[in-house]
Amino acid sequence: MTQQPTALPKPKLGEPYLLTPGPLTTSIDVKEAMLRDWGSWDGDFKAMTAELRKGLISLLGDGSEAYDCVPIQGSGTFAVEAMLGSFTPKTKKTLILSNGAYGKRAVETMAYLGRPVEVLDKGDYLPPRGPEVAALLKADPEISHVLIVHCETSSGILNPLQEISDAVAAADRTLLIDSMSAFGSIPVEPSKLQFAAMVSSANKCIEGVPGFGFVIAHRAELEAAKGNSHSISLDVHAQWAHMEKSGQWRFTPPTHVVAAFLEALRAHKAEGGVAARGARYRTNRDAMVSGMRALGFETLLDAEWLSPIIVTFFCPADPAFSFPRFYELMKARGFILYPGKLTVVDSFRVGCIGQMDEHVMRGVTAAASDVLKEMGVESAAPPAEALAERAKLAA
Amino acid sequence: MTQQPTALPKPKLGEPYLLTPGPLTTSIDVKEAMLRDWGSWDGDFKAMTAELRKGLISLLGDGSEAYDCVPIQGSGTFAVEAMLGSFTPKTKKTLILSNGAYGKRAVETMAYLGRPVEVLDKGDYLPPRGPEVAALLKADPEISHVLIVHCETSSGILNPLQEISDAVAAADRTLLIDSMSAFGSIPVEPSKLQFAAMVSSANKCIEGVPGFGFVIAHRAELEAAKGNSHSISLDVHAQWAHMEKSGQWRFTPPTHVVAAFLEALRAHKAEGGVAARGARYRTNRDAMVSGMRALGFETLLDAEWLSPIIVTFFCPADPAFSFPRFYELMKARGFILYPGKLTVVDSFRVGCIGQMDEHVMRGVTAAASDVLKEMGVESAAPPAEALAERAKLAA
Repeated sequence: MTQQPTALPKPKLGEPYLLTPGPLTTSIDVKEAMLRDWGSWDGDFKAMTAELRKGLISLLGDGSEAYDCVPIQGSGTFAVEAMLGSFTPKTKKTLILSNGAYGKRAVETMAYLGRPVEVLDKGDYLPPRGPEVAALLKADPEISHVLIVHCETSSGILNPLQEISDAVAAADRTLLIDSMSAFGSIPVEPSKLQFAAMVSSANKCIEGVPGFGFVIAHRAELEAAKGNSHSISLDVHAQWAHMEKSGQWRFTPPTHVVAAFLEALRAHKAEGGVAARGARYRTNRDAMVSGMRALGFETLLDAEWLSPIIVTFFCPADPAFSFPRFYELMKARGFILYPGKLTVVDSFRVGCIGQMDEHVMRGVTAAASDVLKEMGVESAAPPAEALAERAKLAA
Repeated sequence: MTQQPTALPKPKLGEPYLLTPGPLTTSIDVKEAMLRDWGSWDGDFKAMTAELRKGLISLLGDGSEAYDCVPIQGSGTFAVEAMLGSFTPKTKKTLILSNGAYGKRAVETMAYLGRPVEVLDKGDYLPPRGPEVAALLKADPEISHVLIVHCETSSGILNPLQEISDAVAAADRTLLIDSMSAFGSIPVEPSKLQFAAMVSSANKCIEGVPGFGFVIAHRAELEAAKGNSHSISLDVHAQWAHMEKSGQWRFTPPTHVVAAFLEALRAHKAEGGVAARGARYRTNRDAMVSGMRALGFETLLDAEWLSPIIVTFFCPADPAFSFPRFYELMKARGFILYPGKLTVVDSFRVGCIGQMDEHVMRGVTAAASDVLKEMGVESAAPPAEALAERAKLAA
């Protein structure tokens, strides 16, 4: 690591770090921005909404002027549903590239909407690849749209977005991106990617608090989305048209969460934008993964696919290891971990995002070392079937 | 007024009071509860969710044990859409009792859902009455459900909920209540009212910050709602079933907003619950309305229909009066008003809810007196057509 150690403040004395993919640990400045009330109709708040939209669009870099930003109240899933309901067709098919919980949830969302889908199901963690997507699109002219999950946090895989975008563009189809946990730390740039819309949310790599998500969509797509949504609350066109006309959110915004997010956006810019944020998270990941490997833990994924967002580790085979106990003992030391989501083998996850730096991450691995000793775990090595599972990735 | 003057703290030095029907002025304690981060998966946050649900249910009083509470991320409109999507039938009709913007929005929501409605449209502010609802239900056996807006903030009218509930129960139909701006200060009690479900939101009479709403529904209705929703994000049954099983929200909750709400619920209880909260708001209203009347302003509604939530005043006929200027001058004195929503005559609104007492309300009318003088308004009396409009209410 050549990067200088950063010196992030502790979030608040005695508060545990959230090693989770959002909600995450935010700065005290972000939280203190919530210490006042705003009238959602008032000019002061309209100016805040304008700043939020402009700030997010600017993260796209070159080509951003063709896009606009539409915040949507609720969790990230609300924003994904809003994007799917507003931009996918009712008769043509949408191809969902699924390799984890968020791909599955998109399929379930489309079932609620009663809209036709094709699913490329890659299981728990294998990445969808460009050639197989190209072949599917060639074989089925009824597929007009493709949804890719940028970083699938259920395994921690960073899916090959550029490769998929190239395949979708070559087949002249429309790409939608769920960049929930990646946007703000990994580039999503119209100068390199061809996409109609993407979504993310307040409490991920921008490091705000949860309460709204946002859709960033091409203006032509926003225009065309009129009347396409299944939901008054999640109608992206209607929210956009209302904001353009009045400067206000269509329905009551989470004013305090918006204020916190503006502070988070300012800190994101001051840190150096997407590149610097991504670099810090990669440093976090590398420090944490190397420390965990030194203890004998093994990652689910090879280095090529490890996102800087969250990393999945196999649970040790040692019978003295129990994840619930490991969780509680780590929490007692100030670190909140995230349970695993794999169906095949036991696993847990460690997030790398939020107000944390490599020093904090080394604190995580030092705590893990202590906890293994306290639990009497002699080896953190995974069971043989876990490694066999991992071998699939190389195949 | 026999009530002792309360002594509420100013929300924050230099911050204006929000005389709006939510977002509203919250206490500094409520806002300071947001100064930490929670993992939404962690046991500590699950306990907070359980406390929130239990606290809200307890506000129903006798008969509450048949009901359960399901918080829904997003604004109040999201919760209304969730209730309509989860509890109204796809083939039978829902009768919407409409007398303002929120009734209209419910009709629009049902159009998104493609579900059949009948509308009793009472215009801008006339109340729906029991006998006319009874007649409509008798005439059309296809109507199975009825939606009433408890307090319609577009005029400030407190609709006759008991009378409507009695008519709906007598006709053996199902009542849904949009008690968004009233719940917590006006009783909604199963011992007196017969209803399947009601909604409200965090940033109304409980005096939390915006970011989620909640549905309170009869358990039998919750069971029966399985598979009825049009939206994965707004599926009340699914959120309920998930919470019952795991103690967690189905998708990321607005953790900080929830923490603020718990603090608000504690303060609500400490103040004396629904009765005391309602008494303070009525005192606020009475102090403010009598002060405004003393200045020559006239209310849209007669005393019988004036809610303790928000009051509509006619704009003065005096040509020296301009609402945008009045707004800015009042804001400069620390009071944010709310514009009117009547289609027939010019009006504005003054909210009575939030962390304000009668002293603050007297400050509002003193400021209004100053501002009229500064604007050179000699009389605050409304134009003749406004009074003619009001005469309709008595007819």
